[in-house]
Amino acid sequence: MKQKNIHSPALSRITVSDPLFKHYISIVSKKLIPYQWNVLNDSEPNTEKSFCIANFRVAAGEIEGSHKGMVFSDTDLYKWLETLAYCLDRGEATEFEVHADEMVDLISRAQEPDGYINTYFSVNCPERKWTNFTEGHELYSAGHLIEAAVAYYHATGKKRLLEVASRFANLICDKFAPGRELENACPGHQEIELALIKLADCTGEKKYADLARHFLEVRGNSSNFLEENLREQGKNRIFPEFADYDALYAQSHLPATEQTTAEGHAVRAMYMFSAMADIARTYGEDAMAESCVRLWNNVTQKRMYITGGIGSSGHLERFTVDYDLPNDRMYCESCASVGLMMFGQRMAALTGDANYYDAVERALCNTVLAGIAAEGDKYFYVNPLEVWPENCLPGTSMSHVKPVRQPWFACACCPANIARTLASLGQYIYAQDEKSVYINQYISSELCTDIRGAEISIKLQSNFLADGTSRILIKSDKPQSFTLRIRIPYYLENPTFIFNGKAIAPVIENGYAVIAVSREGEQILEINSKVEPRWVAANSKVRADTGKIALMYGPYVYCFEEEDNGPNLPVFYAAGSSRAVSDAPAAGLPGSLPTFKVHGRRLDSGIGESLYGQPSFRFTDAELKAVPYALWCNRTPGEMIVWINALIS
Amino acid sequence: MKQKNIHSPALSRITVSDPLFKHYISIVSKKLIPYQWNVLNDSEPNTEKSFCIANFRVAAGEIEGSHKGMVFSDTDLYKWLETLAYCLDRGEATEFEVHADEMVDLISRAQEPDGYINTYFSVNCPERKWTNFTEGHELYSAGHLIEAAVAYYHATGKKRLLEVASRFANLICDKFAPGRELENACPGHQEIELALIKLADCTGEKKYADLARHFLEVRGNSSNFLEENLREQGKNRIFPEFADYDALYAQSHLPATEQTTAEGHAVRAMYMFSAMADIARTYGEDAMAESCVRLWNNVTQKRMYITGGIGSSGHLERFTVDYDLPNDRMYCESCASVGLMMFGQRMAALTGDANYYDAVERALCNTVLAGIAAEGDKYFYVNPLEVWPENCLPGTSMSHVKPVRQPWFACACCPANIARTLASLGQYIYAQDEKSVYINQYISSELCTDIRGAEISIKLQSNFLADGTSRILIKSDKPQSFTLRIRIPYYLENPTFIFNGKAIAPVIENGYAVIAVSREGEQILEINSKVEPRWVAANSKVRADTGKIALMYGPYVYCFEEEDNGPNLPVFYAAGSSRAVSDAPAAGLPGSLPTFKVHGRRLDSGIGESLYGQPSFRFTDAELKAVPYALWCNRTPGEMIVWINALIS
Repeated sequence: MKQKNIHSPALSRITVSDPLFKHYISIVSKKLIPYQWNVLNDSEPNTEKSFCIANFRVAAGEIEGSHKGMVFSDTDLYKWLETLAYCLDRGEATEFEVHADEMVDLISRAQEPDGYINTYFSVNCPERKWTNFTEGHELYSAGHLIEAAVAYYHATGKKRLLEVASRFANLICDKFAPGRELENACPGHQEIELALIKLADCTGEKKYADLARHFLEVRGNSSNFLEENLREQGKNRIFPEFADYDALYAQSHLPATEQTTAEGHAVRAMYMFSAMADIARTYGEDAMAESCVRLWNNVTQKRMYITGGIGSSGHLERFTVDYDLPNDRMYCESCASVGLMMFGQRMAALTGDANYYDAVERALCNTVLAGIAAEGDKYFYVNPLEVWPENCLPGTSMSHVKPVRQPWFACACCPANIARTLASLGQYIYAQDEKSVYINQYISSELCTDIRGAEISIKLQSNFLADGTSRILIKSDKPQSFTLRIRIPYYLENPTFIFNGKAIAPVIENGYAVIAVSREGEQILEINSKVEPRWVAANSKVRADTGKIALMYGPYVYCFEEEDNGPNLPVFYAAGSSRAVSDAPAAGLPGSLPTFKVHGRRLDSGIGESLYGQPSFRFTDAELKAVPYALWCNRTPGEMIVWINALIS
Repeated sequence: MKQKNIHSPALSRITVSDPLFKHYISIVSKKLIPYQWNVLNDSEPNTEKSFCIANFRVAAGEIEGSHKGMVFSDTDLYKWLETLAYCLDRGEATEFEVHADEMVDLISRAQEPDGYINTYFSVNCPERKWTNFTEGHELYSAGHLIEAAVAYYHATGKKRLLEVASRFANLICDKFAPGRELENACPGHQEIELALIKLADCTGEKKYADLARHFLEVRGNSSNFLEENLREQGKNRIFPEFADYDALYAQSHLPATEQTTAEGHAVRAMYMFSAMADIARTYGEDAMAESCVRLWNNVTQKRMYITGGIGSSGHLERFTVDYDLPNDRMYCESCASVGLMMFGQRMAALTGDANYYDAVERALCNTVLAGIAAEGDKYFYVNPLEVWPENCLPGTSMSHVKPVRQPWFACACCPANIARTLASLGQYIYAQDEKSVYINQYISSELCTDIRGAEISIKLQSNFLADGTSRILIKSDKPQSFTLRIRIPYYLENPTFIFNGKAIAPVIENGYAVIAVSREGEQILEINSKVEPRWVAANSKVRADTGKIALMYGPYVYCFEEEDNGPNLPVFYAAGSSRAVSDAPAAGLPGSLPTFKVHGRRLDSGIGESLYGQPSFRFTDAELKAVPYALWCNRTPGEMIVWINALIS
């Protein structure tokens, strides 16, 4: 496989203007950053306690106490710092930089002389450092520290946190590199691998990428390393639910290059596959690249919900088998869809193929957006496609499904993961290499960047969902030639192109329309297409969706809520040929996505109040209303359904 | 409510001749009794170890060691003894009576001087006796000892085990009766209540029934007794899954007379409701009787599967909410359906109403029979209505569902519960009171009994499912008048009656056709009806069954297996008007129930190999074959489905 050098432009040079995403990006800096700051400080009422900053203070010896909260609670602060860095990059939330600097100082004071940082182990059980790889999350937490440090350095130019993280990374290299004491250990939760690659890119220190590669290579070589490590913990076990632990859970069942299906905990899988794609690109490793393609195809062609959700088992938040996509009891963790975006972005960087961005867009526009309230203060951890609030009962098989977003979680990965994704959204819209600028998402925005010595700006005005057109204004200060590669997604019907007033028929290469630009000054590319609401069916092997259809508009999946359609949504039917009529956006929801009216039917089994009886099926007409799944549960909480029954004649 | 005195005739006087049930009754004595005997002795290869008899030997001080296995493992021996007693009652498995007597001696040697018996607490932690009501199962285990003792006494006339059980029951009365030390305690798993009533009936000692009544009355008075008791265990907790414990779980959330919905663990609920019905009948307690009716109606009209399965949550094996009846992930424990049979039998005894036997028959002919292999050596614990073997994966939300019957279980309640039910099946077929004999099931059999001083025999030849007729031969040695009450179930269409050659139109009272008998000698009642295979739909509020139909024949639910229909069963459709054509019984399956051929269709969503795409639904014709659910998974293991999609025009 030919190596590509596709990377993201600096976030500071991307401005998003799309009304829906601008809303969410803005609530990250205006609401989430202050809200999460309060949570980290345990000063937010009505949320589960975080203990996060208090734990650092205890570890720094500044207050007395023990570590409280989850074993990986340090990452809440790291992800907050990373998110804040992306906001600062764009000139937002600047009033928090002073707090961030205080936190950087605090983290450095909590760092042990040898570079070690982890408040759980430092405070509660220093004698058990580097012993519990399966549950301890030391390397996972280190990874998030590194990601935060790299982001904070890029945003502020301040090196303090990068130095702290590098010292820790150096210690990790000393412990885990080939030939060292822990050379056979692999992390119980992948994350450090992709972080080390970022650190190598940022510092130019190749040893960090080498260690990432080593972590991937050592994994699954001894297929039961993590299982044996778990058994060795004896009475020091941390997670009771790991009674069901198996080698698949953390993808340690086979070497990375031999894995063919996405198995185990979905977030762990996505973080690992992302790092694999990075390593394949960095080292030009074909076997790793081929494994990435196989795993990507398995996920997106056999194990992914229409919403870009992944993880079909509610228990242990994991993959199950091909085509097993139950709509109400699955996990579909918000973090897993963030991870799918990360994996897809890296696959596109590895291959230069736009098609990887289809699933990135699917995850972003549906599960990731749905994971956060329009007001920014509540979150979904689990993202079902069908919710019946009454049966989401504690102490049952459905207890993991929350019918309304929650203000916080003891395990607070999802809010922070959504926040850092939205705060850095530009990285998913634009990319560039030596001679091309890539437009990967139709999210209205502007990019300024240098290419081949020219300073250019690209302004994307995407109106596909309003009037079927998009305009791209290109400005260059020099007559330097470069190519603009514009992703043409599957839902654009027969797009036509007008470049500087003239119809053109650009080459479509790897899913990108390739436009050669060589003039200086302003140029305009217009794309005209038609985006119609469309009904979608699932593969016949997806048992949960047999005879069902879902409504999509562009990349957006629509759903039916109780507020608009009344209760007992599973009794609704619509014909796959029925027209979805565009209507005004739902009042009070952000952005300008239309709602749709659908002429459907409601089924009655005709047996009255009995539980079972002779069928006498009767349809009655019903006007249904669909809203974007991304925005569900932002009005009156209630039932929701994505897949409705198809009327099949 | 008027008190009834309806009771079961002696099992020794009932002989079952129905080919299906005779088969299962016979494998209990010929296979289960020896098989379970080997299991109890840990001499059966390829099964999980029971440790049961070894624990008694340790408790009796005869071998060294600690208690191993489940905390309630003593009940495996008690249920084996109870089952064997029912076999001995009918003159079967007599070669095991000598082993039973040895076991009775062993139990008596394991009994402590004050009467206490429980090998777990005696051996492992005598200091914690009577402290852990929520998890300890001491009273539950005592209940099964008592049931075994009563049955063994009835079968053999031997008093030794009854004395042992009575001594333990006396100790329990001394500890738990009003005014005693533990008067506020209630059992964490109901069972002792109904056992104490049996003991009172057997011994004439009213104090045992009084204590049963007290246990029901104290329950839920302090709604958090069991929860607090669980918290008090601290590090001595037994069941990790009780992290999710709540007051609903063991029905201690409200006083028994104030409960209106079936909540919590389904087996606990059924055992409790059974005891409530007994107490309502024994003491003529109207408030208790009314609560029983409400709870029965809630279960059977809103929370019961078409197969008589109950317990919609796989996690914690419990009830959820009305109409929540998912077909693949539920629990539907075999024991819970045995419990439903017990509850229904007692409701019929309380009210004299035959309609309670509809659900008893539903549970028996479907879930209970399905719980045991035709060969008698394997068992289902969980009884789903839709099985896709590939997704029944360990470590996932579906891990509790086993796609094939298992040879044994560490928690071995179900095999033993099915065995004792089948071994005592006669109690569900016949009942009698001072002036009536009741026929409650159309299971061909013969009863000999005394009524009003006359010795009568009743021979039931039920051929409804073969030719629409049943014959009942009545013989009496005296011209004594009595009434024969014959249940007329909902699936008999327009039954007509010929009594001694003359057409009659008997009064139908409480679901029974009432026939006055007054002659001596032989008399014949013929019932002619039509039983056609029929499609059944569920209430429109049962979301899991929207637009679906199931095939029934008499009380038998039918299902579609992969062996006959190929894989991916959820794509099959059939019209509710389509005729199910009777065919020969499936080769190698017991009994003579027909199979059915149905003209159906197979749906393809028309999107090829993609995961999602534009629907192009296409039907192709398919000849489907249905087999009784009771007999599923007795040929080649594979997929199974009960509810298939209805073609609705």
